[in-house]
Amino acid sequence: MIKLNMAYQKLKADYLFSDIAKRVSDYQENHPDATVIKLGIGDVTKPLPKACINALHVAVDEMGSEDAFMGYGPEQGYAFLRKDIAESEFKPRGADISSEDIFVSDGAKCDIGSFQELFSQDIRVAVMDPVYPVYVDTNVMAGRTGVAPKNRFENLTYLECKPENNFIPDLPDEPVDLIYLCYPNNPTGATITKSELERWVRYAKENKSLILFDAAYEAFIQDPDIPHSIFEIPGADEVAVEFRSYSKTAGFTGLRCAFTVIPKACKVYGEDGTAHALAPFWFRRQSTRFNGVSYPVQRAAQAVYSPEGKKQIKALVEYYLKNAGVIREAFTEMGYNCTGGVNSPYIWIETKSDSWSFFEKLLSQASVVCTPGVGFGECGEGFVRISAFNHYERVLDAIERIKQIA
Amino acid sequence: MIKLNMAYQKLKADYLFSDIAKRVSDYQENHPDATVIKLGIGDVTKPLPKACINALHVAVDEMGSEDAFMGYGPEQGYAFLRKDIAESEFKPRGADISSEDIFVSDGAKCDIGSFQELFSQDIRVAVMDPVYPVYVDTNVMAGRTGVAPKNRFENLTYLECKPENNFIPDLPDEPVDLIYLCYPNNPTGATITKSELERWVRYAKENKSLILFDAAYEAFIQDPDIPHSIFEIPGADEVAVEFRSYSKTAGFTGLRCAFTVIPKACKVYGEDGTAHALAPFWFRRQSTRFNGVSYPVQRAAQAVYSPEGKKQIKALVEYYLKNAGVIREAFTEMGYNCTGGVNSPYIWIETKSDSWSFFEKLLSQASVVCTPGVGFGECGEGFVRISAFNHYERVLDAIERIKQIA
Repeated sequence: MIKLNMAYQKLKADYLFSDIAKRVSDYQENHPDATVIKLGIGDVTKPLPKACINALHVAVDEMGSEDAFMGYGPEQGYAFLRKDIAESEFKPRGADISSEDIFVSDGAKCDIGSFQELFSQDIRVAVMDPVYPVYVDTNVMAGRTGVAPKNRFENLTYLECKPENNFIPDLPDEPVDLIYLCYPNNPTGATITKSELERWVRYAKENKSLILFDAAYEAFIQDPDIPHSIFEIPGADEVAVEFRSYSKTAGFTGLRCAFTVIPKACKVYGEDGTAHALAPFWFRRQSTRFNGVSYPVQRAAQAVYSPEGKKQIKALVEYYLKNAGVIREAFTEMGYNCTGGVNSPYIWIETKSDSWSFFEKLLSQASVVCTPGVGFGECGEGFVRISAFNHYERVLDAIERIKQIA
Repeated sequence: MIKLNMAYQKLKADYLFSDIAKRVSDYQENHPDATVIKLGIGDVTKPLPKACINALHVAVDEMGSEDAFMGYGPEQGYAFLRKDIAESEFKPRGADISSEDIFVSDGAKCDIGSFQELFSQDIRVAVMDPVYPVYVDTNVMAGRTGVAPKNRFENLTYLECKPENNFIPDLPDEPVDLIYLCYPNNPTGATITKSELERWVRYAKENKSLILFDAAYEAFIQDPDIPHSIFEIPGADEVAVEFRSYSKTAGFTGLRCAFTVIPKACKVYGEDGTAHALAPFWFRRQSTRFNGVSYPVQRAAQAVYSPEGKKQIKALVEYYLKNAGVIREAFTEMGYNCTGGVNSPYIWIETKSDSWSFFEKLLSQASVVCTPGVGFGECGEGFVRISAFNHYERVLDAIERIKQIA
């Protein structure tokens, strides 16, 4: 008899964003005249940078030519892209990352969801609360947790992020083996300083833990003191893996490209405590289960590092940050406490009511979609996340509507 | 301490094709003047069909336009593509598959590797021998097998495919829960008749098993009596999932698009024997761990179903089948027993020596790369797989060289 992985039964009925999408489409159906403005899911709205479009056209023509056609690419990504990543993303920040440490993929969500497969079933996992649901759900599916009688799964360590600790969690009370950190944070928009990140790297070294550092939003960092990569911290290369994405940086949500960085010094341990380099295990996983990223898409990602590409990306980031500033300022004026919206495309707003009520109020009275904070965890109750990813005019429109009902 | 998933230690050192690639690159390094002809890995060489190239350019322009830009797509794939798949691939063959049953992905390898995640750890898995290594390795990584003292993993059921049974395995002696079947077969090139497939569907129904049917090579079927889809068999929709790919059909190995079909009637069981529809679990898995296929690539896949696309695909398939015919004929003339090469791009050749010796002989004496059959399993010893995916002229050249050393 073909039996189900019963861990799936422990999951909540819907993935958060599917749930929201359903509520919005129900609302739209019942209010066909309403113009809904979506500031919920973090999806970009501006077209791809011209440098990327040009690179795509050239690569498509190659795919149509007898001489230049490209078949299966390396599972790890083309050398041309990995080289540019190492030189543009890490070298200028003093991080000792080479092109061999970089694994190109079709999404940070895919990589960060799959990465837990490399580890033993009985490791202790720590996640921030509020948290991007993928870190939790993939560990639930893998069978590492108990059930979730309320909003928290048994056998998971939740690192609480609240206004009191500036949304930077304290070190855990119990030893943990795998730690998911995300800065600039999704959903709170909070950032982390070098010294706070150093504290986590020290903890990981002392406990032989591994940090999975999700830096999908690093392009939004403007403050020169905030680290873009965990590998700016000395010694982090022994205890951390970093996930990056072109989704928000360059508008690739519909194009699909990301990369994961596993330094040569990064270690994992056998049952007997023997240390092994981690990267070869990810390579084995990827070469067995993945066939590389679409060639034209890798050429588009490479174009991000061209002089024009860099200029165009900077303009894109500034556009969304302007939106973020408008949202943050308006909610602050209306008397709400806000985090993020600076160095981050997300604004985390204390709602003075429960998250779903505020979500429903914004949807039903202003036709504006946000993301209820409680969907990201217990500590998200009483907050919503507003995303700056939309057209400037629509953001202004949304703010006007919200002001009228606030 | 961050501990390794020890199941990875059970795997053979290298993924077969990485191993071959390394031997070839070593050979090339030591023989810089040799022109190596690759008939090993099944990678296409002809450019993408014009219909696909045109669709890609149009979609790329959309991605560069304020009005037409596409962000995150549905994890299951765009409706425009799923509709065309249902209507072109299944309806004409009398298979009752609707667009909701179709899940678009970036590769059949990815899907077939991930699908086992949906099931309990203690199911019994059956694979054909010889076998595409991904079916085995992903179950090893998931911890479902013991070690492999020789060429076979403990706790896996191997279904032997030999000349004596025309490479169609007998039903298993012991009850099995998950059955991987692949026709037209990789690596043997064998095909399966409707009545033989009916036998497997009957077995699956009687045992509440699930068949994972890999039909990545169905486009090469020319004989009207050979089924293209397992869903041509009545009742298969209750016990089978089918994997399809554009890689070989339309030259998408470097572009990345495939799809998986899970009929509404297909079931999986809880510990207590309760039946559940299978598709929602795959949807949950994909929406949690995957972000959909690149939008321009989905438009290119759609173009495969346009009138021009269909014509161009047909020409591509005929081109590779002509190569296959040349290879099959030449080896038969040289006195080798051959399977496949008809209704299949692979020719499975009985080598009269062990597989790796024949591989090394072809590489060192003719600079031709094939795939050693033993790399696909115990029953592959004494065979090699030759792939028809190369330029016609190079295939002729390879055959001439082989004739001189045979």
